[in-house]
Amino acid sequence: MRTIRLLVEYDGGPFSGWQAQENPASGGGRTVQGELERAIFALTGERVRVRGAGRTDAGVHALGQAAAFRTASALPAERFARAITARLPEGIAVLASAEAPEGFDPRRDARRKLYRYRILNRDARAALDRGRVAHAARPLDVPAMDRAARALAGRHDFAAFATKLEPGRTTVRTIHGIAVRREGDEVLVEVEGDGFLRGMVRGIVGTLLEVGKGRRPEGAVAEILASRDRRRAGPNAPPEGLCLVRVEYEERRKDEG
Amino acid sequence: MRTIRLLVEYDGGPFSGWQAQENPASGGGRTVQGELERAIFALTGERVRVRGAGRTDAGVHALGQAAAFRTASALPAERFARAITARLPEGIAVLASAEAPEGFDPRRDARRKLYRYRILNRDARAALDRGRVAHAARPLDVPAMDRAARALAGRHDFAAFATKLEPGRTTVRTIHGIAVRREGDEVLVEVEGDGFLRGMVRGIVGTLLEVGKGRRPEGAVAEILASRDRRRAGPNAPPEGLCLVRVEYEERRKDEG
Repeated sequence: MRTIRLLVEYDGGPFSGWQAQENPASGGGRTVQGELERAIFALTGERVRVRGAGRTDAGVHALGQAAAFRTASALPAERFARAITARLPEGIAVLASAEAPEGFDPRRDARRKLYRYRILNRDARAALDRGRVAHAARPLDVPAMDRAARALAGRHDFAAFATKLEPGRTTVRTIHGIAVRREGDEVLVEVEGDGFLRGMVRGIVGTLLEVGKGRRPEGAVAEILASRDRRRAGPNAPPEGLCLVRVEYEERRKDEG
Repeated sequence: MRTIRLLVEYDGGPFSGWQAQENPASGGGRTVQGELERAIFALTGERVRVRGAGRTDAGVHALGQAAAFRTASALPAERFARAITARLPEGIAVLASAEAPEGFDPRRDARRKLYRYRILNRDARAALDRGRVAHAARPLDVPAMDRAARALAGRHDFAAFATKLEPGRTTVRTIHGIAVRREGDEVLVEVEGDGFLRGMVRGIVGTLLEVGKGRRPEGAVAEILASRDRRRAGPNAPPEGLCLVRVEYEERRKDEG
C-alpha cells in the first residue's frame, strides 16, 4: 500500500461541503470527499477513504485543498491527478498528485493554512462572480477592519469565533498573519494560521464586517476574543466568499521517510 | 423623452448572447438585451429598445458593457441601476446609470473597447473558474504569442479574423494595443481597439493560441492579416474565455449637450 497526496481545487457551490457527516443540515447531498472517493473507485476499483486538510463547509471553495488516500494501485504517483480529474464532476479538479510518506495525514501534518475571503463592496450585487464573493453594498471602512483584525494575530483561544465546540478539544490556535485590504471593487481578508476551528474564519470575517460597517468599534474584536463567548461575535459571513487557498507542510528530509 | 446610459456586468454563460437575432444558431434562448428590456418594462411599463456597445456572442462575458435606452420615466438617472438590477436574473447586474445626451448611441459613439481573454494554462481543467476561462493544458510560448500579436497593432483590414462579413461594411479597424502576458496559471490576452468585427477577438486569440502551441510560426499572424482570408486564421477560441472589460466614450463638453 502507498499513500498518494492530492492538490484539489473546487467550487463549493454545488457541494454539501468537504464531508457529509460534518454538515447534517445539508441534507446529505454530494460532497467533495465523496466525489473524490467515487472517482478513485472508478479508477482503481478500491473503496478508499480520502482525508482532507480542511473540512470546508457547504459553499466554501478551495484553490489548494490538500488530501490523501492509500492505494495498492501501481500507477505512477504524478498520473493520479489527471486520471482522477477525468472521473470527477466539473466543479472539482485534482491539480497535482505525488507520493506521500507512509502515515502522512493531510490534516494532522498541515503546518499552515491560508484562507481568503472576498467581499464585493459596491452597490450592485455580483453578476459574473456570483457564488464566489460575498456582497456588502455600502462602502466598508477597510483601514478600521485591518486595525481591528490585528488583535487576532498570535496565539489565542479562539472559542468566541467557533461555530461548534468539540468537547475536550483545545480551542487555542495561532494566527500567523491577518490583513484586510481593498483591491478594486473588492475587500479581501486573508488569514494564515496553524489551524482553524469550525466556522472560525467566517466568524472573524462576520465580526470584521460589523466593524467595517461602523456597527461595532475596532476594539470590539479584542474584547470578543478575550470573552471566549460565541454569542458576542458577529454572525458568520456567508460561505461563498471563503476560499482555502493553500495548505503548507514541513518538508521532510529523505531519511525521515 | 430622456436617454439613460447603463454600465452592465454579466455572465455570458446562461444567455444566448447580447442580442438574439445575431445568434440564429443559439435557438432563441434568453438574451442579455432581452432581459434588460424585460426588467425596464417591469420598472417603467414601457417597451423600450436597449442598445449595447458590443453585441457579444453567447457565452462571452462583460464586466463593463455600455448600453442605453430612451424613457419617459421621471426617475432620477442614477436610481435606474439599482431599480433595474432588482428586476434582473442573477447573471446580470446594472452597475451604474446616468443621463446621456440626446441621440447618444452606445455603439456608434464608442471610442475604444477593451477585451480580455483568459486562458487557464495548466494540465488540469478549470474547476472554480469553469465557464470563465478557456483551457490550454500544455505550456504556451507566451513571448512568441506576444511578439506575433504586435503585427495586429495599428490600422488594418481585419477581414481575415472576422466570423461573418457584412456586405458593404468596412472591415478596417484600429487596434490601439494588444498584449499577451502570463499571470500565475493564466495567460491573458488584452486587446484595445476602436471597434471589433464579429468574432474578431476570438479569431485573433485562436490564431495566437496556435502560435503559442508551436503549430504556426510567429510570422503567420502578419501573413494571415495581409491575406484578408478567414480560412487562413486559426479556429475561433471558445467564448467563455472572453470578456468585454470596458467601453470608452469621448467626454462631451457641456455646451455640446
